[in-house]
Order: sequence, then C-alpha cells, then structure tokens
Amino acid sequence: MKTLFIEKKFPYDGTQLHSLFAYLDHKVLGPSIVSWQGACSISFDHMVDGEDLLEQAEIKGDEMLHFIIEVFDRDLFSGVALQRLFASIARDYLQAASSALAGKSLVRDGDDIYLDDRKLSISIATKSPVSVMVHFAMNITNDGTPVKTLSLQDLKLDPRKVSEDLMAKFKKEYDSIVVATQKVRPVS
Amino acid sequence: MKTLFIEKKFPYDGTQLHSLFAYLDHKVLGPSIVSWQGACSISFDHMVDGEDLLEQAEIKGDEMLHFIIEVFDRDLFSGVALQRLFASIARDYLQAASSALAGKSLVRDGDDIYLDDRKLSISIATKSPVSVMVHFAMNITNDGTPVKTLSLQDLKLDPRKVSEDLMAKFKKEYDSIVVATQKVRPVS
Amino acid sequence: MKTLFIEKKFPYDGTQLHSLFAYLDHKVLGPSIVSWQGACSISFDHMVDGEDLLEQAEIKGDEMLHFIIEVFDRDLFSGVALQRLFASIARDYLQAASSALAGKSLVRDGDDIYLDDRKLSISIATKSPVSVMVHFAMNITNDGTPVKTLSLQDLKLDPRKVSEDLMAKFKKEYDSIVVATQKVRPVS
Amino acid sequence: MKTLFIEKKFPYDGTQLHSLFAYLDHKVLGPSIVSWQGACSISFDHMVDGEDLLEQAEIKGDEMLHFIIEVFDRDLFSGVALQRLFASIARDYLQAASSALAGKSLVRDGDDIYLDDRKLSISIATKSPVSVMVHFAMNITNDGTPVKTLSLQDLKLDPRKVSEDLMAKFKKEYDSIVVATQKVRPVS
Amino acid sequence: MKTLFIEKKFPYDGTQLHSLFAYLDHKVLGPSIVSWQGACSISFDHMVDGEDLLEQAEIKGDEMLHFIIEVFDRDLFSGVALQRLFASIARDYLQAASSALAGKSLVRDGDDIYLDDRKLSISIATKSPVSVMVHFAMNITNDGTPVKTLSLQDLKLDPRKVSEDLMAKFKKEYDSIVVATQKVRPVS
Amino acid sequence: MKTLFIEKKFPYDGTQLHSLFAYLDHKVLGPSIVSWQGACSISFDHMVDGEDLLEQAEIKGDEMLHFIIEVFDRDLFSGVALQRLFASIARDYLQAASSALAGKSLVRDGDDIYLDDRKLSISIATKSPVSVMVHFAMNITNDGTPVKTLSLQDLKLDPRKVSEDLMAKFKKEYDSIVVATQKVRPVS
Repeated sequence: MKTLFIEKKFPYDGTQLHSLFAYLDHKVLGPSIVSWQGACSISFDHMVDGEDLLEQAEIKGDEMLHFIIEVFDRDLFSGVALQRLFASIARDYLQAASSALAGKSLVRDGDDIYLDDRKLSISIATKSPVSVMVHFAMNITNDGTPVKTLSLQDLKLDPRKVSEDLMAKFKKEYDSIVVATQKVRPVS
Repeated sequence: MKTLFIEKKFPYDGTQLHSLFAYLDHKVLGPSIVSWQGACSISFDHMVDGEDLLEQAEIKGDEMLHFIIEVFDRDLFSGVALQRLFASIARDYLQAASSALAGKSLVRDGDDIYLDDRKLSISIATKSPVSVMVHFAMNITNDGTPVKTLSLQDLKLDPRKVSEDLMAKFKKEYDSIVVATQKVRPVS
Repeated sequence: MKTLFIEKKFPYDGTQLHSLFAYLDHKVLGPSIVSWQGACSISFDHMVDGEDLLEQAEIKGDEMLHFIIEVFDRDLFSGVALQRLFASIARDYLQAASSALAGKSLVRDGDDIYLDDRKLSISIATKSPVSVMVHFAMNITNDGTPVKTLSLQDLKLDPRKVSEDLMAKFKKEYDSIVVATQKVRPVS
Repeated sequence: MKTLFIEKKFPYDGTQLHSLFAYLDHKVLGPSIVSWQGACSISFDHMVDGEDLLEQAEIKGDEMLHFIIEVFDRDLFSGVALQRLFASIARDYLQAASSALAGKSLVRDGDDIYLDDRKLSISIATKSPVSVMVHFAMNITNDGTPVKTLSLQDLKLDPRKVSEDLMAKFKKEYDSIVVATQKVRPVS
Repeated sequence: MKTLFIEKKFPYDGTQLHSLFAYLDHKVLGPSIVSWQGACSISFDHMVDGEDLLEQAEIKGDEMLHFIIEVFDRDLFSGVALQRLFASIARDYLQAASSALAGKSLVRDGDDIYLDDRKLSISIATKSPVSVMVHFAMNITNDGTPVKTLSLQDLKLDPRKVSEDLMAKFKKEYDSIVVATQKVRPVS
Repeated sequence: MKTLFIEKKFPYDGTQLHSLFAYLDHKVLGPSIVSWQGACSISFDHMVDGEDLLEQAEIKGDEMLHFIIEVFDRDLFSGVALQRLFASIARDYLQAASSALAGKSLVRDGDDIYLDDRKLSISIATKSPVSVMVHFAMNITNDGTPVKTLSLQDLKLDPRKVSEDLMAKFKKEYDSIVVATQKVRPVS
C-alpha cells in the first residue's frame, strides 16, 4: 500500500470519491491511502451514503483532515471492514497520542469515533467498478460542523503528524492482512 | 450473525477449524460466532498457520477462552479483516472492563493483544471451500503456555461474561458491516 | 429478504431500475422485493434489454403489477436464476389461485408466463455495481399492450393479493436458498 | 451445457458427487447434466447435507432416476438456484406428461416435489473447489424408501424418456440464463 | 467465442469501448472478438488509460486495424492477461506471415509489439460492470501517428487477412482456456 | 512476485502441486515462481489433468527444469491464462537465446512448446482453495521421455540460466499485469 500526504489544502466535496483519484490526481498508483487538509461540504448529488440522503443530512466542517483509501479488486464487504479497521487504528493512536484526554476514553462505534457525545469523524465506504473506496475525515476544528463535535485541536494534536502516523499504521495493517492471506493452509 | 456460548468444556486441538463446525456440532446455522472454555494444544497436522509450521511453534495453554467465527461466501481477505476487527473489539472491551490494568493500555498488533510483552491471545484466519473461519483464543490462566502470557485471571475477568459480551459486540459489528454494504450508492 | 407493497400507484418507465431503489425511495434496506401498480412505458434510453433495443421493441401497458427485486453482492448469473425462479413461483401460484383457467395450464418459458399465445408478463434482470436487480411485471388489464396479452383481470385475480402472496413466496424461496448455502459440506 | 443419459445402471452412494464426475467417468467435458438409473443408498461418510447428518437421516430407494449437474466457476448460491430451477422444470414436465394425476397437482417446495404428502425426490447442491454440483433423484419405484413416497411408476412414466426430456429442458434453461447475462446493459 | 470482421470502415474514437458494443452495434452475442479498419483518434474524455491521461498522450493514426474483445463475468486481471495473450498471438502470427522482416524479430513487451524502436500497436484493457474489454489496434499505415511506428504495409500484409487469421487464433486460445478450467482436478 | 531458483535437485512427482509449496518448503511467501532441476514421474494418484487421466498418459522424463507458479485469490481462468503467458514468454526467450535452431521456429500451441513434432514441455494449471497453481517443466535431456521430445541440451542452453531468465521475465509480466489493473478507468 502506498501512502501520500498531499501538501496543498483543498476542500472535499464528494467528487474526490471516484476510482483512481490517487493515481489521476496525485500519481499514486496501486492500493493507497492519501490524505490532506481542507474544508468539507458534500452536496446531495455527491453524497453516496443512502442513510444521509434519506435524512437529508448536512455533512460539513470548516477544516478537516481527509483520508481516501482505495483497494482494487475487492468486494464492498472488505471495503467496509477496512474502514472499520481504519477507525479502530485511529482511535488507538489518538488515545495514546493526545495529552488532552485526562483519563477519558475515545470510543469507536462502527466507523465513528466519539468522546462522550462529541463526534470526531465522518466516513463512508463504497464501490467503484474496479475498486473499493473509503473516505474518512476527522475535524481539525469544530467550526462549521452541524453537530456537537470533537476536533484534533481539542486533542492538541498536529494534523500533519496525525495524518502521517495513521497512514503508516494503516499501511502496516493492510500489508499484513495481505500476507496473512498468503501463508495459511486451507481447511475442509 | 448467530452467537452461542457452549456450556460444555472441551479442548481445542485444531480439528474444530473446519466448515460447518458450529452447525454440525452445535446446531448453529448461518454466519456465527461460538465460544467455549478448554485447554489448547494444536498438533502440527492440524496447524494451518504456515508461519507456525515453519517455526515448529508450540501452541498451547491449560485453559483458554475459544472463539470460532464462520462467515460464508467471503474471500480470505475479508476473513482476516474480520479477525483483526475481533481483536480490536476484544482489546477495547477488556481495557474498559478490567479493573486490574492500573492505567496501562492493552495493545492490539495485527491479530494479537499484548500488555507490554505479555501475550493474551492466539489467532488464525483461514478458508474452507464454502466459508472463511477464524479461531481466536485468549488465556484464562497462564498455566501451560510456552511464552510469557497475560490471562483473563490477571485481568480479573470472568471468562463466561467476557465471552458473551464479546460475541454480542462482534455480532453487532458484523451485522452493521453487512448493512453498510446495502445502503451506499456506487461511484464511477 | 424484505417485502413491501407500495400503496401509491405510479408508472414504471425504466428509471426505477437502479441500485438502492427500494431503500432510497421506500426505506426498505437490504435484499428486497417491492411491488406496486401502475402503467408501464419504457423509453429506449432506459431500456436495458439489448434484445429489445435491437428490435426497437415497444414495452408498455396501461396498468401492470410491478415487482423490483434487489440482491446485493451477487453475480448476474444468480440474478437471472432468481428471475426465472420468480417466474416459476408466479406461474405455480396463479395456476392454483385462478378460477378462470378452466383446465388450461399457464406455461413458464424462461422469464415469460404464457397462456397459449397470450403473454402475461415482461421481465429483465441486470447488474448494478453493488447488486443484481430484476424487474418483473404482469398485466392487470390488457389495455395498451402492443402484443396479444393475458391479464390478472382475465384470471379474475386481485392484484394486491397476488402481489403480497407472491412476495411472501419469493421471500421464502430466497431465504431458503441462502440457508441451503450454509448447511452443506463441500466436496472434493 | 452437455447432456448424457448413461445406459449402464449403477447405484448412487454419494461418492459420485465430486468435481469432474461427468468428465472422468463418462467423458462429458464442461458444464453438464448426466443421468442414470440405479439404487440409492448414501452412507453418513458421503452425506453432505448437514441437515440430514444432524437428523441421521436414512436416504435410500431401490431404484431411482439420478441426475448430476456440474457448473464450473459459480458460487454455491447459483448452484442452489439452479437446483431449484431443475425441480421446477421437473414438476412442470411431470405434471404435463403424466396421465395418472387425475386433476391433482404436483407441488414444488424448495428442492422437493410432492403429491400431497408423498415425496417424489431427493436433492442436494454443494460446492467443489472448481464447480457447483447438484444431485437430484426421483423414485422409479417406491420400494426401499424410508418415507411415504411417490414414484415414476405411480405417474406411469418411462424413466428413460423422463430423463432425456428433463435434461433437454434444463440444458435449454441453463443456456438461456447464460445468454441473458450477455445481452443486458448494466444499471447505475 | 464469436468472431466478426466488420466490412464497413469507421474510426475508433474510444466511444466503442463499452459493454455490449459487439451485440448492440453488430448483433454478435456472447464472448466475442470483432475487428474493423479505420482511423484512430481518442479524445481525453474517452481515454481510459490513466497513464496516457497523466501524460496527455496523443493516440492516433490515419488507418488502423482495430479489435475489440469482450468477455463476460471475469475480473480485470483476466482481461489484462487475455490482452497480453492476444499481443503474443499477434506477434507470433505476424512474424511467421511477413516476408518483409528479413531475419529481424518482432518483440512483444507487455501489450505492445515492436520492431526495434518502431511501435506497431496500441492497446488497453478495462472493465465494465458486466464484462472485461480489450481494445487492440495495429497500424495499417504509418501516416498520422505521433511516434515512430511500424505498419502492416511495412510488413506487406493484408489487413483483412491478418484480422481474420488473428481472430480465429484468439478464438482457439480462448476456447481452449475455458476447456482447461473444466478438465482439471483441484489440489489441496 | 517472488522468484527462487532452488539449488537442490529433486524429482517432481505431483505432490509438489499444493498450495503454499513455495512457502512451506522454501520460505517464499506471496505470489511466486520457483524452479528446480530433477526427474519427473507423476503417479495417477497425483495426476490432476483429467485428459491425462482418461488417456492413462505416462508423464515422465529423466531430467527436467521445473517451475511452480502460485498466485493467490484468483480464479482458474486467470491461472490458465498465466500458464499460457508463461509458455509464450518461454518460447520467445528460447527462440532468441538458442544458437541451435538454424532458422527454425519454436511454436507455442496452448501450453505446449514444439519444434516441429518434438515436444519441449509439459504443463498443468489447477486451483487450490486459496490460490491458482501452475506446473510447467521443460526437458533438460530427452532421456526417459515417453514421446518424441526436444530438450534444452538440443537447444544448447544452460538450465540454470534459462530458469533465472524466465523467472525474471515472468515476474516482470505478472507485476505489470497487476499494475495494468490499477491504472485504468472503468467503462459503462
């Protein structure tokens, strides 16, 4: 798995969630996780989560840390499982890295990370004809969010460092999953 | 996903890791997680982890809490991802449930759970022609283990309650993953 | 499998045959069969059957009983097989339920149901990136159909009851197929 | 799909249900349905239906008409759907062909065919590593069956003709399903 | 596999690379290879090769011999492997058929065919929701090509004969691959 | 893809064709091609080619250059396509490398390589529950072969060099196929 932190800031509006985003826009070829900072505002036209569409949910924030994962030739079940693992890895990392939690615990619930009733993150996993894709984003600030949120600022963490550490950890997890499929004998 | 705690104690020797174990031995039909208590001792004939086979590893313990997960019609990649999620769920639960950790953190590394250098668990994910299967087991005592281990006794936790809570949590995760594959629009 | 009879009448014009129709338009999540009454008129833009496109076939009727089946994460072969099973179930049910057949037999031929040369139904099975989908519709009246047709009026059957009975029967078949994939030992 | 009626009579004992049976034993290559007459008696060692195993069911008959279907590179869901379609085709054919039904209707229920409470057939669908396989058999006589049965003798039908007609009809269905997967435009 | 040489000349502009092209435009149903002569000029809107898009490559020629292969229900890996086999078959055929090579050897490198630094062909393999598709084209003349090229004129070969011979050879290869998947016993 | 030339000579008797051979016997993990020199003699028990079994073919040779390819999580169609590509790569390489061909051409026909009626190689592609596997072997001498053969001795080529060059070329092809599945936009 390749990783890339994209230096340039730009907003996420849902149009980034298409196959080969990392390759065509950032020359990252193959299974990948890329990340950048920017606002978030997703129009209903580019909202793929049916639950959000039914609720006509507002999904936005003034500054978020975005991740897009793409893995080729897998089914959506695998894509959602990877999304959950990313959330789990993020929770563990943030818990250990933040000095601002004062004994409280971040909690992962499905693809969400919470501190009590404050929501840190948004995420969706979907399928293109050639790959499965995950968008995962966590608030850098709480400005412009439509619900009660937690942010990396609250956690006193640097977005860039969080991004690079999480991508490295997810790459390690993904690579080790692939290896685990290649070293086991089948059963009857 | 169905869950079952099997009251009867019996040892795990590797022969349980075959398709339809839950159905043929315990009448649990469909995707399932079943659990029981018993010794662990896996002969090389029934060891499926190639890494363990190459190392001629001893895998055993006098009393462990065993889980077998079976999910039909999925690839091994999904099976390994589910195994990792189970380990993550177990870590989060044990961390929150144990009064004996004294501020220390359990750490998940791949499919393993550690407290410092003490290993709580063993696990393997494999494939049958009709399903993917996971064996996951955590020490109830440290007796009879060939390496430095952690046990549920150290964590002052009741195996039966741990078993039922973890199966309920994993069932919730699995069911929500399935739902997540049925409520998202595809992308191009 | 979920079932829903949609009370509101509306025409089928081909645009309903897209992934998540049942969920996004009618809040029915997961594998499903939904049904409603309405006219049928499919433009060439939304016609997916290549055979009809090549023949520039007119596909219409003033009032039909529509069904849309969606099953996730299956290949098109399975989708077509399910379509044929639905036609078979419909034939068996209509044969038994109708008092107007006077000893004559309805015949299923592929995805069509006939009484002699009178065609009761139209159908197509196709694939979205996340699911397989079937549209199946039977004439409620013979008005507005471009060929010699049979209708539920001819069979003296109430569309609403036919709809609910068929959906219940198809749900039973689908659920039992899934079970049948989870209770059999593989062979060599 | 190839079809073959095997002239030689021989018993079915479960060992025939393995991949390439038609090719290695009867030189029929590719997707196939083959058929023969013979006794039926399946030992628990070669019984693959978990439900029968749990019930320790006796599966036997003194003379049955056997069919083995093999289709390569499909999932078990497709295999079970094909099994159900075969049962549906058999029901329709026998209903139309038999002069002995006196206005009564044969009923298909899943993979079984009944006349009232008399069972005509047994069947199982399973998976080999390279194919899905179906065994379907109907009683030629009621001798030696452990339950209340119906037979082709009761229906006054010639087994050889039933076999060849059913294989021709199933071949037509299978071939048309394959065609139906190759002439439809995908949807979004 | 069906083959068709399309008599009418028409340009390839990338819009031909969609599912069911052979069926909807030329009534060729099922896995197929079709071929025709015509100019080549692909706009960026219809260019699917990400590498070409990143390089903003010009892909054109005044007259080329085009092939479109479509195979249903396969993954993209298979599609690319078939593309490479087609290139290999073309190389072998052209080497043997041309009297103009004077002891020099054509070389296949991935999906390209070269004579020294002169490029004979262009190709791409991609995926539709129902099939994998390959476009392969070789220069009939060197006119209008943006790089140093080789053409069938250089090789003193008749495009129509090349087309029909290559389609026959590829059909033989494809059909024998399918057979090879249906006559082998699985291993453990 | 990993490559390994195994220094130690040992006979191929068919038992080597099982999943994880490269990993469990030679510590090569992941998709791989491994090669060694040794006699060949395959008993009917370990013969997987149904055609050979039907013909009761003798498959043997006193000294051959063996290759085993294993690729995980692919279907058998891909496995056979890779086998054909390996044969094509071998043909091209041997043609260019041998000084003994005197203007004659080696010909690939399916998975075989011939010089006129002399057969250089044997091969089979099959499926394990976790991978596809190919055995490909070419005669080092013509001793002990049951048919008219060609050998690397005839071609005046060193087996070890042939082995390492072919593995390097096949690795390049395989790796580039994987890349080609990750850089193309899907079509409709």
